[in-house]
Amino acid sequence: MQNFSFCSPTFFEFGKGAEGRTAELIKKYGGSKVLLHYGGGSIKKSGLYDRVVANLKENGLPFVELGGVQPNPIDTLVYEGIELCRKEKVDFVLAVGGGSAIDSAKAIAAGTIYDGDFWDYYSGKYIEEALPVGTILTIAAAGSEGSSNSVITQVETKLKRGASGEVIRPVFSILNPELTQTLPPYHTAAGSVDIMVHIMERYFSNTENVEVTDRLCEGLLLTLIHQTPKVIENPNDYDARANIMWAGMLAHNNVCGVGRDQDWASHGIEHELSAFYGAIHGAGLAVISPAWMKFVSAKNPNKFKQFAERVWGVDSINTAITRYEVFLKSIGMPSSITEFGAKEEDIPMLAKHTGIGDGTMGGYVPLTVSDIEEIYRLAL
Amino acid sequence: MQNFSFCSPTFFEFGKGAEGRTAELIKKYGGSKVLLHYGGGSIKKSGLYDRVVANLKENGLPFVELGGVQPNPIDTLVYEGIELCRKEKVDFVLAVGGGSAIDSAKAIAAGTIYDGDFWDYYSGKYIEEALPVGTILTIAAAGSEGSSNSVITQVETKLKRGASGEVIRPVFSILNPELTQTLPPYHTAAGSVDIMVHIMERYFSNTENVEVTDRLCEGLLLTLIHQTPKVIENPNDYDARANIMWAGMLAHNNVCGVGRDQDWASHGIEHELSAFYGAIHGAGLAVISPAWMKFVSAKNPNKFKQFAERVWGVDSINTAITRYEVFLKSIGMPSSITEFGAKEEDIPMLAKHTGIGDGTMGGYVPLTVSDIEEIYRLAL
Repeated sequence: MQNFSFCSPTFFEFGKGAEGRTAELIKKYGGSKVLLHYGGGSIKKSGLYDRVVANLKENGLPFVELGGVQPNPIDTLVYEGIELCRKEKVDFVLAVGGGSAIDSAKAIAAGTIYDGDFWDYYSGKYIEEALPVGTILTIAAAGSEGSSNSVITQVETKLKRGASGEVIRPVFSILNPELTQTLPPYHTAAGSVDIMVHIMERYFSNTENVEVTDRLCEGLLLTLIHQTPKVIENPNDYDARANIMWAGMLAHNNVCGVGRDQDWASHGIEHELSAFYGAIHGAGLAVISPAWMKFVSAKNPNKFKQFAERVWGVDSINTAITRYEVFLKSIGMPSSITEFGAKEEDIPMLAKHTGIGDGTMGGYVPLTVSDIEEIYRLAL
Repeated sequence: MQNFSFCSPTFFEFGKGAEGRTAELIKKYGGSKVLLHYGGGSIKKSGLYDRVVANLKENGLPFVELGGVQPNPIDTLVYEGIELCRKEKVDFVLAVGGGSAIDSAKAIAAGTIYDGDFWDYYSGKYIEEALPVGTILTIAAAGSEGSSNSVITQVETKLKRGASGEVIRPVFSILNPELTQTLPPYHTAAGSVDIMVHIMERYFSNTENVEVTDRLCEGLLLTLIHQTPKVIENPNDYDARANIMWAGMLAHNNVCGVGRDQDWASHGIEHELSAFYGAIHGAGLAVISPAWMKFVSAKNPNKFKQFAERVWGVDSINTAITRYEVFLKSIGMPSSITEFGAKEEDIPMLAKHTGIGDGTMGGYVPLTVSDIEEIYRLAL
């Protein structure tokens, strides 16, 4: 096991009606003027928007609002949010939505009190200062509710890049599984895949003797494999939603990723599908992650043997990957990049756009640009 | 799954040489005058005491010290610590040792700034205010390094009682697995049992549909079952010690206990063995927990079927409990309360001393005083 530091200080209020504590928690964490940041119409249709606004008003907490966050949130809205926060002297950013709203809120929170261009943070600069961020989560997927990361797409270049900093971990996150019940099955399934791949990007590692985190990863994967079909069959299965929601946070606050090398290649390769074809991130991962597995397991079978045995209960690595593909299909996920509109002739451009140049991506098996092309081909 | 709140803000510095950050972390968390609190001679023999003192001095951090914490820490030393902290205007308590030193430090930290008798907190009052506590852990066992709890024994009455409060969660904990390598095998094994029972007191629950926390519990138990024999065989197996140490924190910061009823009966029943015969807590649990299992599984087999299948890979509950007993014996743990000096005729007194009167203890199967007597008899 490698040396590590770990701190996950977010306060989680989990369960039915948890959003009733919103204003109380904002005040507890020092907020006196709030940016209410959200996506499209879903929180208005569900009534959540009205409940949150009423809660802020009843508790005398002034706020301004900025909606319109899209899946794969974009830099142009972040700039708008930064300007608004500066003008209105906002001191707390509340994201209501999924990973996109939260990632956008984190970027605004950091950018508002930064002298330079916030994109610096998405070009490698570590975030040392930000307004506090709170969240009301409506999609179990990205894990951004408990993580120190954010991913934003630059509209002009289609670059989808991540930033990180302990200060952008939400100070609180409200997790009410009921709020995820209105989500369409496709998005629910894509969310589960996103969670599973967050776990697998940590699991597939060459670091040896890390049984404790291996076992946590395997336990979370088994939970997703068992609980996701239940919510696809019955969207109102509260307990299944609750299990998935807590697993989604644990998959990405890094409690199961400490002390080991991680390999984020599937995310890197998927990002291009979101950037160029607007693929829902989890759906893109459902196509890329099995292709990645086929490619790397042939070169480095080590961890895949354990994965096959402990997660899928089979001896054969190929059988395990097939089981994973059958599972993905059973929950309605796509199986080819062509389903997003990608064509075979796009592949060299996509691989090149990952930006790795003559370098490599990932660590379990370091991938060159031509390896990445091969993975896209396996995903055709 | 039940509604819950969860916040585990402790900063963990994990790995070789981590204690080199002690003074830096104390300063980061606002300490300017430190109580250095520890047990007997082991940290002096190992050289840890000298390294910590040198680190504080090099960084210009004044401190006073109070050693002498015993296993099953006692109220009289806590009173001494409170007086010392008040007199010396200490604003940070650093525990160096295992759960006993940490629990004693937490009691001192809370008592120093409390107007009344600190024992109020150990009689049911919730702790709302305390000096910050940091730890350098030398035994993987109690989980106090990441928990909001503390257990102290009142010398005069032999009452061993717990207190809790979010403010006594350590602000930082330094976890260097090397520091546990000098521990005798008996204490190492007892530590692992303590960790396992922390997990099981959360696992055996009547709350349904909690797969995510069930799986985390099972993963941690499997880790302990595999890694403990390695350190008994080779005390210098760093990686095995590291896996156990991180599991020990996760077993008790409540990440695997949220959203469900818990049942702390084995702890309650064991406490009397520590109080009356000075049993090492984990060794006492090694005797009590299988006896508890035999008694309650006959009345409520539900969760034990899953435990048998997923943790021990067997269908029969009795076989699973036998496997657990064989495991405990293999790592050198006792199997009868007589090994601590208890006699059959002591049993009614022990059961009565739990203080439950006409009430019950635990929730998986609520236990009366006569049930508890029966469990002590099963542990003869």
